[in-house]
Amino acid sequence: MYRPIGVIHSEYTEQEETPIQGIFNPSMGEIEVFPEFAAGLADIESFSHLYLLYYFHRATSAKLTQKPFLDGEKERGIFAIRHFNRPNPIGLSIVELVEVRGNILVIRGVDILDGTPLLDIKPYVRQFDHRDEVKSGWVDNQHTDDIAVWNASPRGLRDRGRTNL
Amino acid sequence: MYRPIGVIHSEYTEQEETPIQGIFNPSMGEIEVFPEFAAGLADIESFSHLYLLYYFHRATSAKLTQKPFLDGEKERGIFAIRHFNRPNPIGLSIVELVEVRGNILVIRGVDILDGTPLLDIKPYVRQFDHRDEVKSGWVDNQHTDDIAVWNASPRGLRDRGRTNL
Repeated sequence: MYRPIGVIHSEYTEQEETPIQGIFNPSMGEIEVFPEFAAGLADIESFSHLYLLYYFHRATSAKLTQKPFLDGEKERGIFAIRHFNRPNPIGLSIVELVEVRGNILVIRGVDILDGTPLLDIKPYVRQFDHRDEVKSGWVDNQHTDDIAVWNASPRGLRDRGRTNL
Repeated sequence: MYRPIGVIHSEYTEQEETPIQGIFNPSMGEIEVFPEFAAGLADIESFSHLYLLYYFHRATSAKLTQKPFLDGEKERGIFAIRHFNRPNPIGLSIVELVEVRGNILVIRGVDILDGTPLLDIKPYVRQFDHRDEVKSGWVDNQHTDDIAVWNASPRGLRDRGRTNL
């Protein structure tokens, strides 16, 4: 049904090393858009942020409830967390667009495994995508500041496993 | 590769009638999650907003450049707009979650055709999904206030056709 339009390159080759949520992580990466789709990149340089949709190619079997990273004591419904073992293993990330070099997009804030097949790019538009008065469920009760510390701690990730929230 | 986890119900049966960007449109809808996936909805009621990923089932052939609605004079790259005729016809919407009734989610702010196959639901998390200092490209130069007027104007939509930006 879907074929990749490109591939995402990052410094992360193992799930256990990959950070949780790009907003907390300044690491750089590159998107390689296959040449036959490069014409679709016109005008993209005028956006500072992009949505990436991609295939969780290293996901295993889906589970309808999982323990999220931030609150690892309790299982949550898969549609209330962002774990990759989902019924349809499609990932969604917001990244900062740093530079466009032909069919290569240099990006910052990457929480994606190296070699991930890219399905789509959509512009992130403040006027459409910001919501006020948001309740973020169980995440509101967590210390998201801890994520930056966690991301800088490979050993912690190895010990507990990555769940991408 | 992907099979629907449910179906989206809305009042819009024609592309020409469907509003552009849910944030500008208060219309209600329902998500019917198929019973075999309903266990994945645990904890979702604690979120006020959701990302929906869905299949643009009425999309036709992809074009790498299109004229967006807001700036209809100039073609833009498909990855810089949100038109449905994309290489991988996957839609992304943010909706407000109003009520959960078993496997039915009542939602507000719908810009999706009735009968659209649902691929995934992810929680919208302010801590992860808000970005400051966003440049929204060519959209920043447009009068997005006009969208609400446009959405209330079926004739205008019929005349010019819907592009979902």
